[in-house]
Amino acid sequence: MKIASDQSTGTFVALPGETEALKARVAARVVAIRPLTPVDRASFPDEAGDATQFSRADVDIDFPLDAIGTDLSALMTIAIGGVFSIKGMTGIRIVDMKLPLEFAAAHLGPQFGVSGSFALTGVRGRPIIGTIVKPALGLRPHETAEMVGELIEAGVDFIKDDEKLMSPAYSSLKDRVAAVMPKILDHEQKTGKKVMYAFGISHADPDEMMRNHDRVLEAGGNCAVVNINSIGFGGLAFLRKRSGLVLHAHRNGWDILTRHAGLGFEFSVWQQFWRLLGVDQFQINGIRVKYWEPDDSFVRSYKAVTTPLFSDRDVALPVIGSGQWGGQAPDTIAATGGSTNLLYLCGGGIVSHPGGPGAGVKAVKQAWEAAVAGVPLEAYAKDHPELRQSIEKFADGKAA
Amino acid sequence: MKIASDQSTGTFVALPGETEALKARVAARVVAIRPLTPVDRASFPDEAGDATQFSRADVDIDFPLDAIGTDLSALMTIAIGGVFSIKGMTGIRIVDMKLPLEFAAAHLGPQFGVSGSFALTGVRGRPIIGTIVKPALGLRPHETAEMVGELIEAGVDFIKDDEKLMSPAYSSLKDRVAAVMPKILDHEQKTGKKVMYAFGISHADPDEMMRNHDRVLEAGGNCAVVNINSIGFGGLAFLRKRSGLVLHAHRNGWDILTRHAGLGFEFSVWQQFWRLLGVDQFQINGIRVKYWEPDDSFVRSYKAVTTPLFSDRDVALPVIGSGQWGGQAPDTIAATGGSTNLLYLCGGGIVSHPGGPGAGVKAVKQAWEAAVAGVPLEAYAKDHPELRQSIEKFADGKAA
Repeated sequence: MKIASDQSTGTFVALPGETEALKARVAARVVAIRPLTPVDRASFPDEAGDATQFSRADVDIDFPLDAIGTDLSALMTIAIGGVFSIKGMTGIRIVDMKLPLEFAAAHLGPQFGVSGSFALTGVRGRPIIGTIVKPALGLRPHETAEMVGELIEAGVDFIKDDEKLMSPAYSSLKDRVAAVMPKILDHEQKTGKKVMYAFGISHADPDEMMRNHDRVLEAGGNCAVVNINSIGFGGLAFLRKRSGLVLHAHRNGWDILTRHAGLGFEFSVWQQFWRLLGVDQFQINGIRVKYWEPDDSFVRSYKAVTTPLFSDRDVALPVIGSGQWGGQAPDTIAATGGSTNLLYLCGGGIVSHPGGPGAGVKAVKQAWEAAVAGVPLEAYAKDHPELRQSIEKFADGKAA
Repeated sequence: MKIASDQSTGTFVALPGETEALKARVAARVVAIRPLTPVDRASFPDEAGDATQFSRADVDIDFPLDAIGTDLSALMTIAIGGVFSIKGMTGIRIVDMKLPLEFAAAHLGPQFGVSGSFALTGVRGRPIIGTIVKPALGLRPHETAEMVGELIEAGVDFIKDDEKLMSPAYSSLKDRVAAVMPKILDHEQKTGKKVMYAFGISHADPDEMMRNHDRVLEAGGNCAVVNINSIGFGGLAFLRKRSGLVLHAHRNGWDILTRHAGLGFEFSVWQQFWRLLGVDQFQINGIRVKYWEPDDSFVRSYKAVTTPLFSDRDVALPVIGSGQWGGQAPDTIAATGGSTNLLYLCGGGIVSHPGGPGAGVKAVKQAWEAAVAGVPLEAYAKDHPELRQSIEKFADGKAA
């Protein structure tokens, strides 16, 4: 009740103007309360006082569309942003959000999405295999381009700048595009295969970000990494309306909104905003990652990002990465229900393969063939030497 | 070390390209570690395992400017955003951030700030006294305008839309501006005093937000509420470059980034981004607020927002609000070191005054006169009846 009241009419004292008609127009309503088992610790410890047991419940709150409209900044402000300020709450987490159909027409959503990503890379019947240029920072443009040349030769479908690489002095985006794109275009000319390269175009200033976007597009590029938390709704909305690039979202910073299980947001809630705004590809970790996220949380994220909000067109391509080398393919495909509509990002799992990056790509493809066929990797590796080498090197978790 | 490494070169295995020269160019460095007393609980409980004691330390990390540049989305991504993803950390909080001088020239900062806010309201020698139109949601434009008329007559310097009010169907910004601005301009014509009205112009789409901005400016308005978390860096950067309005920042949603004392950010870190981007007025709660924030946290926020980053021009006007009625003036002035360079926002503390809003404004001014003179409120109230009535009504904490 406190949340519903705070977040709509905004006061607990009856005010002169607050008529029943007004309440009917805009008041949020608690429509269901489902008690959960109590817990013995407060998610906000400073609110615990002397208590040793804390009641919990799932609460459904309806907000009238009339109070919010379809603007996502209003939705965030009214339905979510304020709830974390309420005194005396020992914990609060937004676990689900269902938007009415009006939001479908009000937002552009993904421009390329799943089908566009597969069409542009020419991949069919398996995941798009991607990798990341490492080290994350410090390479000059010609050094990046050399690595890109090797990775292209290795047969990857997709390469990206590390999300921490945008346009520092030692590797301006302009120079990096000028160094990298000829490699991509030459390879396309020779083989017909255009490797998708995601350049880091993020900038706090949307005008600057748009200039970065234009640079990539004009040079023949077709993809960009955007650090969605660091540019905000405004940055992504501005970009999407003008974009000719596939937008690959990195969620850097998201962890603080979700990592404490009693606080913040479920990814399933948060990702709805970004998909409506127009993310085409969404990084969501993977199985047995090097970060904190447990596998079950990843599986929920996968389901969230691949479940239509209103139609198939608003689904983003799940980007599965972090410590991946192919060994997680069987568990990943179990999570996807057999789908290979995903981008599988391997860093060390490809470039540190004992046979070189080319063997690394082969090994990853073999792992997915085995997983799709339901054949155990060990068995498939018997007549697939690249996969066998991967298992020998990475099965102990060293691919990160 | 893990943070410094993860956030710069981004790997723990030696890679072919990772030379010493590269590391010197971009590697982050741990420059100091100051152990803190251990604690008996993990801030991220799921990381606790069987441990019953958790080591803590303040750690200083230097990032080379060459690795980041002056773009704030890069700064957020590289220096901050990634640290919350690191596995095995039982808690992490960014408690301070010192930026090099290069950031001063790279960002516009506040356009109006403290001096502009006082000049535009014509207030001298006391805080700007402000109020909020309540109920938060549901009033139609003509109803809002009626309330504004009363509040203007009461003698307030500043009025704002509730942060949850932007442009819903029942009160479009266009109609609200059309209804409210004549009240402001008529009063200015009659009295020479132009009340500053902050209209809620936030929108996830910067183009739409700019249209909202233009509507306010064209109608003679001079201020706007922006929900900075909901529009993001991109929204604010875009707006500030084109703005003719005082930008009044509401930090709705900030709580989830800061409320758990072992996680997230100190406000002192986070506010630096927004001031560089151009916030003129910054809401920071106050003494004995209705929200969760304890007084000592507010005092730190006040000091943060009023301490120059590079010069006085980058200071934002502190906006002190939530449950305020004047009774907190003595404790507030103790926190400000005697300064009255602030906007003092009272909702119920003004409109619910027994003598009406006019008496409410007088009472708040009297409370500040007493606080500035160092006279106890009870004593000052003896020959200031409006203050006396406020004390009788609100001293038990009912002004929220």
